[in-house]
Amino acid sequence: MAVYTDVSDEALAAFLDLYDLGDLIAFKGIAEGVSNSNFLLETDRARYILTLYEARTEAAALPYFIALMEHLATHGITCPLPIRQRSGETLGMLAGKPAALVSYLSGVSLKRPAVAHCLEAGEAMARLHQAGATFSMQRRNDLSLAGWRPLFAEAHGRSDSVLPGLEAAILSELDYLEARWPADLPSGVIHADLFPDNVFFLRDKLSGLIDFYFACTDAFAYDLAIALNAWAFEPDFSYNVTKGRALIAGYQRVRRLEPREAEALPILVRGAALRFMLTRLVDWLNVPPGALVKPHDPLAYYKRLRFHQKLGSARDLGYESQCT
Amino acid sequence: MAVYTDVSDEALAAFLDLYDLGDLIAFKGIAEGVSNSNFLLETDRARYILTLYEARTEAAALPYFIALMEHLATHGITCPLPIRQRSGETLGMLAGKPAALVSYLSGVSLKRPAVAHCLEAGEAMARLHQAGATFSMQRRNDLSLAGWRPLFAEAHGRSDSVLPGLEAAILSELDYLEARWPADLPSGVIHADLFPDNVFFLRDKLSGLIDFYFACTDAFAYDLAIALNAWAFEPDFSYNVTKGRALIAGYQRVRRLEPREAEALPILVRGAALRFMLTRLVDWLNVPPGALVKPHDPLAYYKRLRFHQKLGSARDLGYESQCT
Repeated sequence: MAVYTDVSDEALAAFLDLYDLGDLIAFKGIAEGVSNSNFLLETDRARYILTLYEARTEAAALPYFIALMEHLATHGITCPLPIRQRSGETLGMLAGKPAALVSYLSGVSLKRPAVAHCLEAGEAMARLHQAGATFSMQRRNDLSLAGWRPLFAEAHGRSDSVLPGLEAAILSELDYLEARWPADLPSGVIHADLFPDNVFFLRDKLSGLIDFYFACTDAFAYDLAIALNAWAFEPDFSYNVTKGRALIAGYQRVRRLEPREAEALPILVRGAALRFMLTRLVDWLNVPPGALVKPHDPLAYYKRLRFHQKLGSARDLGYESQCT
Repeated sequence: MAVYTDVSDEALAAFLDLYDLGDLIAFKGIAEGVSNSNFLLETDRARYILTLYEARTEAAALPYFIALMEHLATHGITCPLPIRQRSGETLGMLAGKPAALVSYLSGVSLKRPAVAHCLEAGEAMARLHQAGATFSMQRRNDLSLAGWRPLFAEAHGRSDSVLPGLEAAILSELDYLEARWPADLPSGVIHADLFPDNVFFLRDKLSGLIDFYFACTDAFAYDLAIALNAWAFEPDFSYNVTKGRALIAGYQRVRRLEPREAEALPILVRGAALRFMLTRLVDWLNVPPGALVKPHDPLAYYKRLRFHQKLGSARDLGYESQCT
């Protein structure tokens, strides 16, 4: 649920005057995304999503995110298309916040995707990786290996208040990952947050991808590892290998994983689990008084990590080399 | 901002199966209303608002609210029309909560309505009062005079923690209002919460009224008094008599106030100010830890009350007897 900023009638009217959109007929705050304020904005011509970028989204990276969406939307990926102002600008200011208007996508995100949806999500991710190949901008992934210790420092040794022994478990996992994290895997534009909330379906067919505000340049297989964590675990934290297999198979329909990528999957899923556990842990420990957002439980990702610590090979995640 | 209840994919699909709506193409939580959870729901045929009624809305009164909306929508008032299930029912259960689906209204609510909007709001209110004349159900207003002392008791003598002296000021106002509250004014269906958030405009023309969950049977002039408090005060709590005049004049274009209603306005606006101050005060003092909603400031209505305590006659609110 996310509407952090109130927009006055006058400020909205002035902002919309920068565009050529027609007459406003609806403007509603919507509960989409957790980092920014989002509004459904409708004119007599079309519907749009207006996003106000709050402090959590790195302002310096906004031109990257906006340009990436424009690139992907014009290269075969159904994702929000940034709308240009009369001046050509895609990024403006509204209510003191950076703001962008993007096209509206129909579709429904699923709380519990089924196997068939995992297959489509994997396929869409591979298409995104391919479409990103001709995108010229780069953005380092601050939430990969090098970022985890500084992030963990924000928990200030308070992890054991969440679960006794968690501090030591994280330190040991960091040591393990730092010693083994793969370098030089095939890389390019990754979504880095392709959770079910960010994938729309229409009648069980994938209809669009949203929320590119963690997108960056990193290993393709790491993107898949993030998605395996997000799509293939059941609510009781059991791993549904059929869903994992569907996600990987869907991906490979479009882009075959290299053997070294497949080999790296077991460590990449551990890293991905740690990454989401750490951001959630820091949020959990730093909820400001009076906060309007309930943080996600970091232990949901600790349980995933514990599962991955017992993995044999990528086969246990559902990977098949598909010699057919 | 209001989405209190998560709806699972399965529960939503089962609920929608009760209706004949077409295929779901969008489902988004929206920040509309503060008491209930609201979702924008779109199918390949039309758009709807799905409301889950949370604990604050009196469940026993839901059939009244739903029947009233249906009555008004079919008697010339642009308001949400409850959608019937295949069985004919308008009220169902979803995620353990009573739930209803209503038609979607285009329009934008204004944070700071101008004089012209006040005129239209007054006119729409009078039309609502007239359209209610043929509605057969009754609902007592629990938030009028008889309800205020029990409501105040929920503040448990803690009012002075909000503002020193507030406790005594409220008790003295209650005494004053109980001694003078008018009986037997012209009555019928009133909206009882016609704030600017509940009135939609399209290109400065009023396009619809929403949120009938305080509607009840009470004095028409009391409804106008609630609206004068909500529409005619500026952000600095000064009273904009031009807006007050527009609201009353708009009302009188459709339904002329009787002299006794006009005479009662100065006491009715005091009562209306006290009513909103008390509900806000109780909310303010009873915010549960971890609440996701920030309560409204009760003092905003104390300041209105202080203004009204110095009123001479209804003329000071903008009433004109219009002998023309």
